[in-house]
Amino acid sequence: MRTTSRDIRTANRYRVLRQAIADSPASRPRLAEATGLSPATVATLVGELLDQRMLVDAGFEDSGGGRPRGLLAVNPEGGALIGVDVAETYVHVEVVDLTLRTLARAHEELYPRDHAPAALVRRIGGAVRAATAGAATRGPLLGAGISMPGMVDREGGVSVYAANWGWHDVPLLDLLSGEVPSPLYLDNPMRACLVAELWFGAASGHEDAVVVNLGTGVGAGLALGGALHRGASNSAGEWGHTQLVLDGRPCHCGRHGCVESYVGAPGIMRTLREIDAGSPLLSEEDQTATVDRLARAHGAGDPVAARVFAETGGYLGAALADLVNLLDPEVIILTGWVARALGTPLLDEARAAVARHALSRPLESTEIVLSPIRVNPVSLGAATFALEGALASVGRGRR
Amino acid sequence: MRTTSRDIRTANRYRVLRQAIADSPASRPRLAEATGLSPATVATLVGELLDQRMLVDAGFEDSGGGRPRGLLAVNPEGGALIGVDVAETYVHVEVVDLTLRTLARAHEELYPRDHAPAALVRRIGGAVRAATAGAATRGPLLGAGISMPGMVDREGGVSVYAANWGWHDVPLLDLLSGEVPSPLYLDNPMRACLVAELWFGAASGHEDAVVVNLGTGVGAGLALGGALHRGASNSAGEWGHTQLVLDGRPCHCGRHGCVESYVGAPGIMRTLREIDAGSPLLSEEDQTATVDRLARAHGAGDPVAARVFAETGGYLGAALADLVNLLDPEVIILTGWVARALGTPLLDEARAAVARHALSRPLESTEIVLSPIRVNPVSLGAATFALEGALASVGRGRR
Ligand SMILES: [Zn+2]
Ligand SMILES: [Zn+2]
Repeated sequence: MRTTSRDIRTANRYRVLRQAIADSPASRPRLAEATGLSPATVATLVGELLDQRMLVDAGFEDSGGGRPRGLLAVNPEGGALIGVDVAETYVHVEVVDLTLRTLARAHEELYPRDHAPAALVRRIGGAVRAATAGAATRGPLLGAGISMPGMVDREGGVSVYAANWGWHDVPLLDLLSGEVPSPLYLDNPMRACLVAELWFGAASGHEDAVVVNLGTGVGAGLALGGALHRGASNSAGEWGHTQLVLDGRPCHCGRHGCVESYVGAPGIMRTLREIDAGSPLLSEEDQTATVDRLARAHGAGDPVAARVFAETGGYLGAALADLVNLLDPEVIILTGWVARALGTPLLDEARAAVARHALSRPLESTEIVLSPIRVNPVSLGAATFALEGALASVGRGRR
Repeated sequence: MRTTSRDIRTANRYRVLRQAIADSPASRPRLAEATGLSPATVATLVGELLDQRMLVDAGFEDSGGGRPRGLLAVNPEGGALIGVDVAETYVHVEVVDLTLRTLARAHEELYPRDHAPAALVRRIGGAVRAATAGAATRGPLLGAGISMPGMVDREGGVSVYAANWGWHDVPLLDLLSGEVPSPLYLDNPMRACLVAELWFGAASGHEDAVVVNLGTGVGAGLALGGALHRGASNSAGEWGHTQLVLDGRPCHCGRHGCVESYVGAPGIMRTLREIDAGSPLLSEEDQTATVDRLARAHGAGDPVAARVFAETGGYLGAALADLVNLLDPEVIILTGWVARALGTPLLDEARAAVARHALSRPLESTEIVLSPIRVNPVSLGAATFALEGALASVGRGRR
């Protein structure tokens, strides 16, 4: 796809509102300085955002002698956004305002009986209604974003493939259209985490960022040159299925030695089993419990847990070093429930291993951090798809 | 670095001229259709390129009933470009016109006595003078591009690091300013190959392309979203030093198991030695001779050569699959002297291995091809840096 002047205007609108959110209230000269856009461009874009009531005037600041400068704030009443994280075992909904304050939320467990498309769509609709019924209405509903596991065709609104549910080419947006307020945006959790980091997290203000998601599955979201890199078939970022060990552990994708089979939760459990097959930390049926116990045991000085952290951090660091050497990003952000549970001790082991494996020049220019986002980042990112959609349609009339 | 509206205008100027080169002569509607730019934008950019005499009017075509459409051709007399490939053992200069026809060339060997900065600069100047003396002058000299091995700070014009010469922070552009016509542009061979493919090769018309260089060293140039991805410290693309085998072969970078130590020329020689230590194909001191002999032996049905091709193609395919899974590019282009020498038989082995290692969705959307460029692609790319520089300064007055 070619970049059109409309895409560029939309991308610049993103930059201005992102900066206004990070820096609210801010003057026009401050927004121009921070985004690198010209004062004239910023004036035009701010004008549009004021017209949309996404920004509001917020007083004046002294400019040191000259005329006082007008300040702009993000308008909490400028609109509400719905973000839905559909995972294999739950639906999580956040309703947020433009300052990303949560207005309401809902969380419902999913069971095997919910896994057929029609049943799942009803459960999603129910969760969204449960959340919006509780939300204090503040301004217009700008849209809803839905993150789905597996492979997603965001343009066509189709769930191309969800392995654990046996889904193929399910026209999800069509099915959802009666259940969830529109406009509706569909994408996968990796992309949701990435836009959440770009707008509200550790990628904010960076042009080249990689968000690495560590959970049961493992993947990477790539923001290069300030924009999401989606790839020729919208499936870029399968870092979890790049190779860490030639002819290594079998991976559920059918190949061997993938990164995921070492640093995803089942891979970490396998490492634990290899170190101590009878470990009391191990709960074969419960990944979350095992990972939580590992974290607590490590904090208490348990030597088996220490070895699991050292080995997992070593694998993770070797795999992150490949991202550093190939992409030379400004920042790599670790997110996902495994990264949250294992936290700084895993990060420290990984950083040490990256330093052993990466070339010195890209290593010096790349920071590796844990995600600073505290709410569910997938729901937040899904809500951000709706915000981006609303910004893309500014000037085209409301959809 | 933020994208400014000037950058966007420059990028669009690249697109229009690139398309005009690929498609000369072409009408304005054809250029608009092929680039995805609006007819108004194309009209403005074509006007600028006509003013610069880079394009010229070239008759009319029937538009099927309406007014005949004016055709535009690239002007061979619109300017000359100098491209210099400085390698460890030679300096190669091409002088080309805007249709990329070679007007003159020079090729000179380098010896250890030439490796000090002052001596090398004199040799580069001499080679450029030897080439330009023989060039039929056709239009203005638009500039010179120089590709240097090692790490290059293109903005500052400094050779940051050239391992084999012991160079650190050599202010190369300053030293060259009396020796080579200006404006002068500096970058590395990987980036040169990438822009050559984007303008004149297999990446032309693609937004997401990876150029993989196989030689003594190994690297990748990334064009993502239609633009070079340079990374935070201008050192993205070190695919040769991503890991293929955990704790594998030692690499000259000091690490173990890097891609380069399996698919660079010395790595291929090591594979040959492991298969048959006394092979008559092996010429320990001469990489080029060994690789050429391997290619001939493979063509003649030699079983040792067949095993070397199969193993090297297997390593290469596994490493390319990581690029497919992570980046999901439209095209991967193999270039460099090793790729040229081993050609289609190596490509076939590599494609088979990619199919075993890559995920099916990105695999389907990614082509893997050999570079179609027949002249020295590094010199051609270096000349293209000068062309891009001239296009970037259109409207700012000649530098
Ligand atoms: Zn896998
Ligand atoms: Zn290496």
